[in-house]
Amino acid sequence: MSKAEYDAFLAQCPSRQLLARITDKWVTLVLAALRSDGSHRFGADCAGEPCPRRYSELARTLPGVSQKMLTQTLRALERDGLVTRTVEPTVPATVTYELTGLGLSLHETIRSLKVWAEANMDDVLANRAAYDSRVG
Amino acid sequence: MSKAEYDAFLAQCPSRQLLARITDKWVTLVLAALRSDGSHRFGADCAGEPCPRRYSELARTLPGVSQKMLTQTLRALERDGLVTRTVEPTVPATVTYELTGLGLSLHETIRSLKVWAEANMDDVLANRAAYDSRVG
Repeated sequence: MSKAEYDAFLAQCPSRQLLARITDKWVTLVLAALRSDGSHRFGADCAGEPCPRRYSELARTLPGVSQKMLTQTLRALERDGLVTRTVEPTVPATVTYELTGLGLSLHETIRSLKVWAEANMDDVLANRAAYDSRVG
Repeated sequence: MSKAEYDAFLAQCPSRQLLARITDKWVTLVLAALRSDGSHRFGADCAGEPCPRRYSELARTLPGVSQKMLTQTLRALERDGLVTRTVEPTVPATVTYELTGLGLSLHETIRSLKVWAEANMDDVLANRAAYDSRVG
């Protein structure tokens, strides 16, 4: 299947599955943590740059993620080639995750949705209030 | 709460809910139908432009949507101010949906994710194959 033939609107197209996965909340959060978007939460040491993180750092800093969900998310991101996993033979082993180029490009794309939601939240809240008073 | 204070990474922020909703599969499909992205499915009569659609057209052209899901999705989009709903007093009434300016801007943003998924599908599939042969 060539690039031009993928169509994420078709239920049977693999890109539809990929689209559903990359819009997952934990994927968004992990990518951001590895880019250190949330510099006030993740430390401002490498703001805006690819930012390798140890598993334990991610587990500590991501709000509300279970260990199972974090492990699953990281494994799926690694399998898709969005994240690399490096194991250093210390005792205990040091496991570090880092965005690949592909992961960086996805993060840039997803970021625009987050920015849209934050920038238009006031308008949406006003629209909801107007709708509710109109509809009753 | 001013714009600068919204943070979609915080569980309690309304923009996190909004982010989750706008990445919904059916929201993406309905916005695209109202922009007539899928011109081969929705008719090429207004490709790339806001494209008012009757409820019955949307129900017929969206692959696999239930009437309940379509009605819920349209109502939520209308409440958020992303879509306008116009009722003409014919018998039976003619109900038409159209993107607002806010809806158009959201559609542009979401579209880039769909484009990313389609453009990088080959790379991701190759990465998965490499991962699977490496790991297992």
